[in-house]
Amino acid sequence: MTGTRDPLERRAQRLVDRVGELAAITSRPSGCTRLAFSAELAAALDLLRGWLEPVGLRCEMDAAGNLSAVLPGTDPRSPRLLLGSHLDTVLDGGRWDGALGVLVAADCVERLADASTPPVCDVEILVFADEEGVRFGTGCFGSRALAGQVPASELERVDADGVRLREALDGHTRAGGALESASRDPRTLGAFLEIHIEQGRALEQLDLPIGVVSAIAGNTRAELRFDGLSGHAGTVPMGERHDALAAAAAWTVEVERRASKEPDLVGTVGALSALPGQVNVIAGSASATLDVRGPNDDQRRGVVEQLRRDAEHQSGLRGARVTWTETLDRPAAPMDPRLIDDARRALARSGQEPPVLVSGAGHDAAVMASLCPALLLFVRCREGLSHHPDEHVAPEDVRSALEATDIVLEEWLARWRP
Amino acid sequence: MTGTRDPLERRAQRLVDRVGELAAITSRPSGCTRLAFSAELAAALDLLRGWLEPVGLRCEMDAAGNLSAVLPGTDPRSPRLLLGSHLDTVLDGGRWDGALGVLVAADCVERLADASTPPVCDVEILVFADEEGVRFGTGCFGSRALAGQVPASELERVDADGVRLREALDGHTRAGGALESASRDPRTLGAFLEIHIEQGRALEQLDLPIGVVSAIAGNTRAELRFDGLSGHAGTVPMGERHDALAAAAAWTVEVERRASKEPDLVGTVGALSALPGQVNVIAGSASATLDVRGPNDDQRRGVVEQLRRDAEHQSGLRGARVTWTETLDRPAAPMDPRLIDDARRALARSGQEPPVLVSGAGHDAAVMASLCPALLLFVRCREGLSHHPDEHVAPEDVRSALEATDIVLEEWLARWRP
Repeated sequence: MTGTRDPLERRAQRLVDRVGELAAITSRPSGCTRLAFSAELAAALDLLRGWLEPVGLRCEMDAAGNLSAVLPGTDPRSPRLLLGSHLDTVLDGGRWDGALGVLVAADCVERLADASTPPVCDVEILVFADEEGVRFGTGCFGSRALAGQVPASELERVDADGVRLREALDGHTRAGGALESASRDPRTLGAFLEIHIEQGRALEQLDLPIGVVSAIAGNTRAELRFDGLSGHAGTVPMGERHDALAAAAAWTVEVERRASKEPDLVGTVGALSALPGQVNVIAGSASATLDVRGPNDDQRRGVVEQLRRDAEHQSGLRGARVTWTETLDRPAAPMDPRLIDDARRALARSGQEPPVLVSGAGHDAAVMASLCPALLLFVRCREGLSHHPDEHVAPEDVRSALEATDIVLEEWLARWRP
Repeated sequence: MTGTRDPLERRAQRLVDRVGELAAITSRPSGCTRLAFSAELAAALDLLRGWLEPVGLRCEMDAAGNLSAVLPGTDPRSPRLLLGSHLDTVLDGGRWDGALGVLVAADCVERLADASTPPVCDVEILVFADEEGVRFGTGCFGSRALAGQVPASELERVDADGVRLREALDGHTRAGGALESASRDPRTLGAFLEIHIEQGRALEQLDLPIGVVSAIAGNTRAELRFDGLSGHAGTVPMGERHDALAAAAAWTVEVERRASKEPDLVGTVGALSALPGQVNVIAGSASATLDVRGPNDDQRRGVVEQLRRDAEHQSGLRGARVTWTETLDRPAAPMDPRLIDDARRALARSGQEPPVLVSGAGHDAAVMASLCPALLLFVRCREGLSHHPDEHVAPEDVRSALEATDIVLEEWLARWRP
């Protein structure tokens, strides 16, 4: 991609440059680290405002730390079109997660601002606060504030340095103000679009740059504790053991087996440990975690229930007991079927045939779907790698993301055209 | 057990009292703690000498820290009969492990000393140094020194406080002297007998007080490292994972399955852990330990080889790799078949029908078997519990141990009678 003839190519190149400028703002040189409400995040938002305001967008931060940039429409009473993503990162993350969506929105709304005919409705870019949830252990804070889904107790959470979320937020927003003021009236919102890297390899395997997300998977998490009886590894015959680790291992194999049989569902045991954890001692207890995700809540809960029974069965076989503590049960968030169909048709007309994918990772779009029809487009990323300094999106795919977003926006605005 | 009419009952009661006196000598009140070459062990040995010397036994400590107490026979050139066990303990151990065998030997040899006819051969009690190996990470130090199996490098090992084994040994033996001086000429040794608590539940289940050990199991230990590829628990489909923990878990189930199929063999995965070990991250690597024991070396090595292939197979199924590091391959130590038969026949004549058991735990008798015909008798202990403050042997079973030892000793001495 060298020429300057294709405007999309030029826009993609500028976007790649901007991603690089943002990436330079990090608290650690080993990757991109911009934690929620941090000085680095504030600097990144300032840089962004410097790109948006000259174009004519009105920028302001709400009480939840969301940055809003509005291109005014001719009829302010028309429901708004929203586009957004986030600029906070995990520790040592990549430069594309979140930033791509924000910058694609910025570029495409700038194109609308430059057009001879202004849009009827307001078009708003949202940079959501604390999507990653690394600092305070939650996530999607900003979008949940828009939807009125942040419990008051959450503001009392403290980060690793003992800073309370409430204080971090006050310092970041400066204006302060009650969190409730950030909530939005769904009647004022027309539709929401998020562009995000896939964080998976489906597009790479299909050799396609863009995908349309049908749903953001629901997620169950659980912590399991298996209790058996410790004993001497040399003196207790196999038939008389109550080996907690063997029970946990057999259950782990069941998790893999059951999840593998279900379409679109994934199940993971990410942590497993044994006590006392010595080579010559039968484990008296073992701890394990479970993470199950799928786009169909009934299916996911059914599998989780089977796995709960499996844990009891595998424990029972060994005269052990299991304690099951469910720590999360988040329903799936389907994207709007009409927006999906419209987007696929519009993209097909321009020669793109985006596949329909499920998002296993959570996104602000899942929360926004509770406020208004929402659409999530995935952009191919190299080897599916994400939350990693080597996260990469090819300039050609940035171009495709811009093109797709232009098309979807045009499609949407046509609906609000008088 | 109240009366004083039965001499064996009286002897058993004295032995229980002595076990209590020894148990009071501990560096920690939470159990019995007498580490090798410690002040507590020296005090316990002094107490024992106070019981043995008045009976006419010549006590001395060799260069390895073994305490020897000899009842002289009429023909010093006859091969000696040896009896022994140990007085060192694990941290917070019980009062019976080791001590029972030492005190049964002391009592039975005292009975010989009291007899009108002295034995033809010398009868020697051995209190082996550092059987448990807790302090310096080895074990059976004293018996290995008798067999010339202590490499010079072992003396350079240091304990948790930085004390070198060589120094600890010099302080304990006082006399010092070259370790080689502790080694014995096999031609001077007729047979060895150890009495020890079973540390398992076989006798309890058979409702019998005494068992005869056919062999001390061989032992293979290994450390395994499974390497796959970490990834997002929500975005990597099941079919594209390289889950190191799933491979390790599936292999752990194989260990349990294969060991359960084999007679007299046990296999244990005592430790298992995953990296990074987070609920929402597919484990990129996992570590596990293996401990396999059995009385038949070919069988044990065959199973271990199958398990090595299983680890490769389960890794291969998931596109992961496994690194296998064998850390121990100790052959089984069969006890002497003729001594076993003779002992069972003699015990049967007195109405005992001791079952033949395999010892999964290691004992000094395994080392002594390399020097002379060796016999190991097990005594029932409550719930198989050992290396624990609640370790317990019933007084009735102490009585049975004394009776059995009397019988075995009489049988052996008959052979050396002119």
